[in-house]
Amino acid sequence: MGEKIPHWLDKQAFLNPEKTALETPEGHVWTFSELQERSRQMAYDLKRMGVEEGDHIAFLSGNDIHFPVFIHAVSYIGAVVVLLNTRLTAPEISYQLQDADVSRLFFAASLTEKAYQAVEGTGVKAVECINEPSVSREEGGLKKEIDFDAPYTMMYTSGTTGNPKAVIHTYGNHWYSAAASALNLGLTPDDKWLICLPLFHVGGFSVLIKSVVYGMSVYLMDKFNQEQVHEAVMDKHVTHASVVTVMLQHLVKRAGSSGYPDTFRCMLLGGGPVPNVLLKNCSQKGIPVFQTYGMTETSSQIATLSPASAFDKAGSAGKALSLAQLWIDTPVPGEIGEIIVQGPMVSKGYYNRPARQESYIHTGDLGYQDEDGFLYVVDRVKDMIISGGENVYPAEIESVLSEIPGVKEAGVTGRPDDRWGEVPAAFLVAENETIRNADIYRYIGDRLAKYKQPADIYWVQELPRNASNKLLRRKLFSLTEGGDQ
Amino acid sequence: MGEKIPHWLDKQAFLNPEKTALETPEGHVWTFSELQERSRQMAYDLKRMGVEEGDHIAFLSGNDIHFPVFIHAVSYIGAVVVLLNTRLTAPEISYQLQDADVSRLFFAASLTEKAYQAVEGTGVKAVECINEPSVSREEGGLKKEIDFDAPYTMMYTSGTTGNPKAVIHTYGNHWYSAAASALNLGLTPDDKWLICLPLFHVGGFSVLIKSVVYGMSVYLMDKFNQEQVHEAVMDKHVTHASVVTVMLQHLVKRAGSSGYPDTFRCMLLGGGPVPNVLLKNCSQKGIPVFQTYGMTETSSQIATLSPASAFDKAGSAGKALSLAQLWIDTPVPGEIGEIIVQGPMVSKGYYNRPARQESYIHTGDLGYQDEDGFLYVVDRVKDMIISGGENVYPAEIESVLSEIPGVKEAGVTGRPDDRWGEVPAAFLVAENETIRNADIYRYIGDRLAKYKQPADIYWVQELPRNASNKLLRRKLFSLTEGGDQ
Repeated sequence: MGEKIPHWLDKQAFLNPEKTALETPEGHVWTFSELQERSRQMAYDLKRMGVEEGDHIAFLSGNDIHFPVFIHAVSYIGAVVVLLNTRLTAPEISYQLQDADVSRLFFAASLTEKAYQAVEGTGVKAVECINEPSVSREEGGLKKEIDFDAPYTMMYTSGTTGNPKAVIHTYGNHWYSAAASALNLGLTPDDKWLICLPLFHVGGFSVLIKSVVYGMSVYLMDKFNQEQVHEAVMDKHVTHASVVTVMLQHLVKRAGSSGYPDTFRCMLLGGGPVPNVLLKNCSQKGIPVFQTYGMTETSSQIATLSPASAFDKAGSAGKALSLAQLWIDTPVPGEIGEIIVQGPMVSKGYYNRPARQESYIHTGDLGYQDEDGFLYVVDRVKDMIISGGENVYPAEIESVLSEIPGVKEAGVTGRPDDRWGEVPAAFLVAENETIRNADIYRYIGDRLAKYKQPADIYWVQELPRNASNKLLRRKLFSLTEGGDQ
Repeated sequence: MGEKIPHWLDKQAFLNPEKTALETPEGHVWTFSELQERSRQMAYDLKRMGVEEGDHIAFLSGNDIHFPVFIHAVSYIGAVVVLLNTRLTAPEISYQLQDADVSRLFFAASLTEKAYQAVEGTGVKAVECINEPSVSREEGGLKKEIDFDAPYTMMYTSGTTGNPKAVIHTYGNHWYSAAASALNLGLTPDDKWLICLPLFHVGGFSVLIKSVVYGMSVYLMDKFNQEQVHEAVMDKHVTHASVVTVMLQHLVKRAGSSGYPDTFRCMLLGGGPVPNVLLKNCSQKGIPVFQTYGMTETSSQIATLSPASAFDKAGSAGKALSLAQLWIDTPVPGEIGEIIVQGPMVSKGYYNRPARQESYIHTGDLGYQDEDGFLYVVDRVKDMIISGGENVYPAEIESVLSEIPGVKEAGVTGRPDDRWGEVPAAFLVAENETIRNADIYRYIGDRLAKYKQPADIYWVQELPRNASNKLLRRKLFSLTEGGDQ
């Protein structure tokens, strides 16, 4: 039986009523008490619309200050919320709504058109999320406790097959993730964590949970803006920020010679190892970079490399956090094998998929541990591309490309990109000579989110395959020497 | 199903191998790696003696540096350890050994005589705990995980009936207590917590758990010594200390006009509210006092008053920690009633006693909450006396006194004492005129621990009772005006 604790937002509103919960560059400042009141009122609004405990609802919104209000409202009701990536196309959203058995889609006003397109023909009810909850009195019937075993959020991730599947997170997953992070990074009353990552991904979302678990202030940005982040660090007493490599590159340039103040304690960096030169620049400018390894299934980082080890252990993702276990599936210590993870922050499974029998998960990533136990990730899951912090799965893109009339076969891989880190490149075999790049882009335009759309298209005679006919994505670029674009 | 996490000492030895785990005024300094090695070797020693998972064993030792080694060894085997108060008499220990179904009593060399007296006629095997574990290679078969649901420690506490009963703590109880404390007090890599309270009580023991949950250094003293504590704070970078009021009174005097350094973050104070003048002195000398409310059943503090509120809320024990719920059993908000507590750090029950049906516990203490939710404890459980940090239960003493030939009735209550805070005073009704105080002390000498022995004996004609013949302990001292000593 899972533990039950007092509702985390009620608790913080009780312990720290006047402390800042949320702050934005636009000048919003909400205390925990205000956040609680708004979230509870929003919960009553949802209840009045008929949302009940256990209902699956979806939420389509960017990083608005009302995002935390909505997700806390959901927790007061005990509904399960599917957090939708706003960059997805309507058909992509449509798939997730149906796969997750969603009854209602709540959307921010700016995404009205996409929301209505997505629900078309699905039977899902689209409801604009009213940003200002209606003011009314307390009506009772809201949850007073957080049940660690109860499901809270679902976030879609793709895998081998290209069919996105919903990772279920319980309240316990999120709570233990926050606790493990505090045990790793420490905790002080002045901590203020900047969010410039999307809240619909676990990297951003997990900071909202840390806020209510720790009683910590959050500085919430609608999206990454290097000037605003720089200003927040220099003048707004921000102590922590979560970023991906491409953002850090901009920030370190902007930092200037004086560098960051001592009050800035942690730049939490996701999305793979970092170039050594970037680490050196950060070190010179007083930016303490914590490189991490994690995925949606682990509810945010599960291993972290502290700045103290950044150069000794260059290229490593560090050690597993105190609540987590991590090992390599190989009979020979030190050799490369699949990375296995286990712990109370690890998702118990996917929605509507066969249950996992083991308490641990196979990440699909390959890595090894050195003699001190530091993890090195050498190969990411199934050729995954990370583009501007978004995970991009070649199989998913290939599946759409292969549907296009005139396309016989499709292979997708990543290529380095100055701005996004990586971008997808497509290698296509044509059925006839009449098909053009424009046909491809026209077809995928509303079927694939922008960041999934190939930056380059190469037309080739055939795709590289191994003996068992498996596509060798790593060899795709070798075709460009002889292929024609 | 409870969560499982990697063994906490293995984890800290992995994450912080060279960090100081333990330090003593005598100059011992052990790293987490050394503590791990010693604890694992001790575990092998215990296994070789036949101690197995689930066995009940007892431990009789003062605050020796080997105390943590022993308790971690127990956790590698999965045995359950009864932590014995060294101040108890042999018969008192004997009762606990039998009540807890203990098979082996491990004792420190200095307590050999008491240990052998205690096991006499019980069938319990007494084993001297060899302080230096035998050096040998790793043999395997030790636990790799901590199971939050598994029982770990038992500590005896008395209640209404005077029959001490064993509070069972699971690993989860101890872990959540440590986590809740970190979320309340914050956490930094430089934290070093001083222990001068007995490790066999939860107040001292909980700091050993914090050490392995946080990766925190502990400064371990065998007993309270104001010079040593002062020196540790001034010169040894101690940041936290757990004390009771009588200790704090000595420390604040010793602090001198320069006061404590800024590095000292927290004086955690148990055992009831503190005189305002003491708080003022502490405040002037830079001693941040955190007043707490807690009991063995809550695995250490469950409510805490921060220094920021010490004067505004004088006399309060603060608010319940973030994982805990606390309320007053009264239909009228603000009125006095029994204090009820709930949370993952609250013990699930007593050994060999009927199981509790509720998820919360009745503390037996009376209190109220003000309009801001601050707790005020107005009356302690069943007339309990707190003497030098030890809980003393009148009913237990009365029960022994009543057995003495020549004593007809006995009533016990506390009176203020400069050194100990309170001491027990006995009110006796004689059966005949021949009995003397010397007879009383002779009889209780080896039956009651020193701190339970009455400081004063008053011979009276009868005891004050209410209509239902219940002893009114609060009225005992009114007898002294007319009674004869």
